[in-house]
Amino acid sequence: MNIKTLLSENELPRSYYNIISDLPTSIPPVLHPGTKNPVGPEDLSPLFPLELIKQEVSNSRFIEIPDEVIDIYKLYRPSPLYRARALEKLLDTPAKIYYKYEGVSPTGSHKPNTAIPQAYYNKEEGIKKITTETGAGQWGSSLAFACSKFGIDLEVFMVKVSYEQKPYRKAMMEAFGAKCIASPSNQTNVGKKILSENPDSTGSLGIAISEAVERCAMSSNVKYALGSVLNHVLMHQTIIGLEAQKQLEKLDAKPDIIVGCTGGGSNFSGIALPFLGDSIINNDKLILKAIEPSACPSLTKGKYAYDFGDTGQMTPLTKMHTLGSQFVPSGFHAGGLRYHGMAPLVSHLVNEGFIIPEAYNQTDIFKAGLLFARAEGIIPAPEANHAVKGAIESALDCKLKGEKKTILFNLCGHGYFDMQAYIDYFDNKLFDHEYSDNEIAMALSGLPAV
Amino acid sequence: MNIKTLLSENELPRSYYNIISDLPTSIPPVLHPGTKNPVGPEDLSPLFPLELIKQEVSNSRFIEIPDEVIDIYKLYRPSPLYRARALEKLLDTPAKIYYKYEGVSPTGSHKPNTAIPQAYYNKEEGIKKITTETGAGQWGSSLAFACSKFGIDLEVFMVKVSYEQKPYRKAMMEAFGAKCIASPSNQTNVGKKILSENPDSTGSLGIAISEAVERCAMSSNVKYALGSVLNHVLMHQTIIGLEAQKQLEKLDAKPDIIVGCTGGGSNFSGIALPFLGDSIINNDKLILKAIEPSACPSLTKGKYAYDFGDTGQMTPLTKMHTLGSQFVPSGFHAGGLRYHGMAPLVSHLVNEGFIIPEAYNQTDIFKAGLLFARAEGIIPAPEANHAVKGAIESALDCKLKGEKKTILFNLCGHGYFDMQAYIDYFDNKLFDHEYSDNEIAMALSGLPAV
Repeated sequence: MNIKTLLSENELPRSYYNIISDLPTSIPPVLHPGTKNPVGPEDLSPLFPLELIKQEVSNSRFIEIPDEVIDIYKLYRPSPLYRARALEKLLDTPAKIYYKYEGVSPTGSHKPNTAIPQAYYNKEEGIKKITTETGAGQWGSSLAFACSKFGIDLEVFMVKVSYEQKPYRKAMMEAFGAKCIASPSNQTNVGKKILSENPDSTGSLGIAISEAVERCAMSSNVKYALGSVLNHVLMHQTIIGLEAQKQLEKLDAKPDIIVGCTGGGSNFSGIALPFLGDSIINNDKLILKAIEPSACPSLTKGKYAYDFGDTGQMTPLTKMHTLGSQFVPSGFHAGGLRYHGMAPLVSHLVNEGFIIPEAYNQTDIFKAGLLFARAEGIIPAPEANHAVKGAIESALDCKLKGEKKTILFNLCGHGYFDMQAYIDYFDNKLFDHEYSDNEIAMALSGLPAV
Repeated sequence: MNIKTLLSENELPRSYYNIISDLPTSIPPVLHPGTKNPVGPEDLSPLFPLELIKQEVSNSRFIEIPDEVIDIYKLYRPSPLYRARALEKLLDTPAKIYYKYEGVSPTGSHKPNTAIPQAYYNKEEGIKKITTETGAGQWGSSLAFACSKFGIDLEVFMVKVSYEQKPYRKAMMEAFGAKCIASPSNQTNVGKKILSENPDSTGSLGIAISEAVERCAMSSNVKYALGSVLNHVLMHQTIIGLEAQKQLEKLDAKPDIIVGCTGGGSNFSGIALPFLGDSIINNDKLILKAIEPSACPSLTKGKYAYDFGDTGQMTPLTKMHTLGSQFVPSGFHAGGLRYHGMAPLVSHLVNEGFIIPEAYNQTDIFKAGLLFARAEGIIPAPEANHAVKGAIESALDCKLKGEKKTILFNLCGHGYFDMQAYIDYFDNKLFDHEYSDNEIAMALSGLPAV
């Protein structure tokens, strides 16, 4: 019985895949918020090292992975691909279910896949310090790990409510030598302004982004790093799908349906885009399902429009599925999916019909996650439970229709740092919120005119 | 640069190794606490399934691993063997440091290696329910996982102070469907007696063992399971060392020094005994270092004598290194190492000079653990930090002497559920306690007369 498919280190992909080179249509340009003209590389150079800006706008099909990045990837990559035989049996489905497991990374999620190259390119250009923001802490701890490998100082603005509720994630960042600051803080002008208006502010990802960006802009030899949304971030994550392709080839299997959860869009893109590229080239049929929380439904209820990436409206404007930059989702337990927007690349692919979005309530996704845990032995992160739920629904649909399809999903992280969410589920303390059309229309009323 | 050595699933060992068949001397017999005569299999049959009792007293060199156990092992085994190149560089040591990483298991430690076969043999003999105890929760969660795979109900008596301080471990057990009870409880006679004498008792491993054993003895078709100490448990863990032998052979490497931490002795035995067996047969020199906390120094300050395995003095008497069954260690952050005794097999090997014990303070082992985390990217469990410290000391000794030795240690688990200990370390809240000769003599004064 073949449960787990491993690759040798020699089979680790040596390039990232850039789907932009294979797309029939281009992504709408990123606009300067003042002039509304397309931004150029020079607009981004205060924030990012040159190589990452090049990757952000690259049309090359493959971008080579540097040897030093490969060496660190080898700590946890290639990651395993599992056949979920116990889950299949439990669901009594004719479908085959495979999942790629990214929880084997040092910080327990897919985030190091981009944290490592981002830290590397900064180090190569002589950068000694990086600033970033983090919500639930997955990204902050991953970049802390990566920076510790390259001797770069890291300052993380952590959304205050998470900073207080997730001391373990903060401790993990500190274990890797990073400095963690509760946001809003009194260390930036944005933070001070917000605190003066609302001293009890518990923060938001948008505020934390604004603080990290300001801190970067105000200092020399300091750059900023983002853990999702941008093209180069999504491209680094394609190592997930490139590995999965090799693993499925060994099994002589090919996915009919690929499922991932979407917050900013990077883990979904990581597993899906290499397969999507092949299906475009070969004109094959492939179903891609992006699963999001009903409580933050950017793809299913948001508008495809130009918007700011942060609440403070300091970033360039990108065309994306958005709930409006002032949208604050109701409290739910998947911090990585609490973002008002979506990666412009994912939004474009949804708009072009390549990706089907679906939304689920959190009580349903935790139920699915526990079913998975008892069958397969891994307790998923709340974010990953969305992908589990999407895969289970697809498998049950196959059962209904008697279809022997092959389903692949990305289990983007484990839930060891999120057990409080499970405790709340056991204690019936989780509530579901679905937004009415009126609420969504209100949230969208503030979109900038472009 | 070869960092990680993997085995294919086909290379998974198919038998456990039983060092008893290769030892020049026998282990002193286990005695009945009343008659002081050696116990027979019939004395153990109310507690354990027949196959495990057979394994406990077996002289066979190898015990075949059942296919159903192999299938579940494949979820996470073979586990990776790492070369700690970054740590070597940081220490500037001529020594080569390898570590076997058991944190890849579903519950993050080596414990499932024995939980899975124990649950399997119980299932094979028709057992529907198991009782056990757990301290920090590693064992309870591992057995919960294993029982969920075989459809067995599990009741875990969790030391009350851990039950209250470690809600995440409790939630993990519940995620796998187990029932978790704070010990002392009012569900057993032992528990009721202790609560009537001391309603505020925060419990101990000894009390929890007594509760689990009583619950088992009082019910039909219910067995008991233990996560360390016993011969069959140590034997199941040899899969760690058997894999490491194959992995090091691939690298043409051979360890001169093997390091593990010891609480009950199972993870240390798991990595060390296959190598020790070979060294006995080939008359090779091999240094084995068992690292324990200064705050619970059974091997370095305890007495090799017959004693009870539990505080309630309900178990048979075993000859082991002990601090006395009434010993309660001072508060420190390595719950898995807070046991007054030691596996009789490990004690025998220490007594015969095969194993060198060393003890370290907790502030020193956390310092070593953080050094390791920043170099290698894995945050170790507090227990595993003892092995890290032992390996680092060995590597520094090699540096001092200019010796190019090969060091292998067992990184028995990750620290994701133990971040509070790191927070306390950062906040300078950890204290060290070393026992005076007088304190030890006091603790040992109550040893039973044999």
